[in-house]
Amino acid sequence: MVQKPAAATTQSARKSRQVEILRRAAEVFRGRGFHRASMEEIAERLGMTKGNLYYYFPGKQDLLFFCQQEALARLTEQAQAIVAGRGSASEKLERLITAHLVCVLVELGGSLAHAEFEELPALQRRRIVAQRDRYEQYFRDLIHTGVQNGEFAPGDEKLRALAILGALNWTVKWHRPQGGESATTIAHSFADLLVNGMRATPAARKRATS
Amino acid sequence: MVQKPAAATTQSARKSRQVEILRRAAEVFRGRGFHRASMEEIAERLGMTKGNLYYYFPGKQDLLFFCQQEALARLTEQAQAIVAGRGSASEKLERLITAHLVCVLVELGGSLAHAEFEELPALQRRRIVAQRDRYEQYFRDLIHTGVQNGEFAPGDEKLRALAILGALNWTVKWHRPQGGESATTIAHSFADLLVNGMRATPAARKRATS
Repeated sequence: MVQKPAAATTQSARKSRQVEILRRAAEVFRGRGFHRASMEEIAERLGMTKGNLYYYFPGKQDLLFFCQQEALARLTEQAQAIVAGRGSASEKLERLITAHLVCVLVELGGSLAHAEFEELPALQRRRIVAQRDRYEQYFRDLIHTGVQNGEFAPGDEKLRALAILGALNWTVKWHRPQGGESATTIAHSFADLLVNGMRATPAARKRATS
Repeated sequence: MVQKPAAATTQSARKSRQVEILRRAAEVFRGRGFHRASMEEIAERLGMTKGNLYYYFPGKQDLLFFCQQEALARLTEQAQAIVAGRGSASEKLERLITAHLVCVLVELGGSLAHAEFEELPALQRRRIVAQRDRYEQYFRDLIHTGVQNGEFAPGDEKLRALAILGALNWTVKWHRPQGGESATTIAHSFADLLVNGMRATPAARKRATS
């Protein structure tokens, strides 16, 4: 067995602990709502004492802020890799849609944490909104590229990006992890609908100029 | 001036009073979040005494339930009229998208009230979810009709309907009534993206069978 360098092991252990906290907290927030969820319940789900959880997060809002930061960091990391990779704008957008759904529905256990800011104090909210805007920019940039190179019909890039993100974000409101469609099935269907909706067909070109 | 029959006047006055309550309550719920919103604030916004508001609604949950019932009743009424009217499945779906956005963003002042059930007690929640399911069925039926008559490429009707409804419902999270795009501009862009995404083009037919 290859021994990992100590620093890498520690960092990867820390990372997986963070994701575990994020998943469990998100489950509790999702199941009971942020307001009804208690730190005690989250600690219990994590097999931690309440005191231990409070040591890491002085309050429920700090935990929510952490969840949002982490979720957006993961989404952004994926988006960076997809955009930097090979493929057409349509292919990259399809991958972005799939990666978003797999991350949010599977890896993060169906958390809307990355998109619910109302509960945060102003300063934290501003930071999360800025992080979210940077993430959303990847969608807008890909749509822009697709329009520029003729893959997509001309159209409002911002509104298109918001329609796509709305469809994606709303999944956590209806998706049931047990017994529902898999994230990849949803992704396939959504990518088909949302990416095709922008394709530069002769009819779309006619509509755009009429 | 033509005198309205007394019963009709009373009913229409009652209706407009209900919509006024719905709008104001939705504004407060939207601005402060359901949990931070107080009955006092809602009464103030309505120019009512708190006691008077309590006379109509014994608690905040009853007011939320009323908002959701009313919003869904309006959406369903519109959908019935559109589906019963003339036009192709695509045209009706475009009208449904526009009507939904105008109702939610303009008439109801950007309320997500019709789609947030988490705060309701189980019995009320079941009733609202059933009402919401009936409304969503109009989208699924139109998509089904479009697939049957060849306007749309084959595809999962439920997932397509949920993608469209997600895009629509998410607008209240980002739309700013002052200074933002109008509901009809958004509707035009969304209908273009979401209805076109299903159109039976030669490429879509090829993808569906591959």
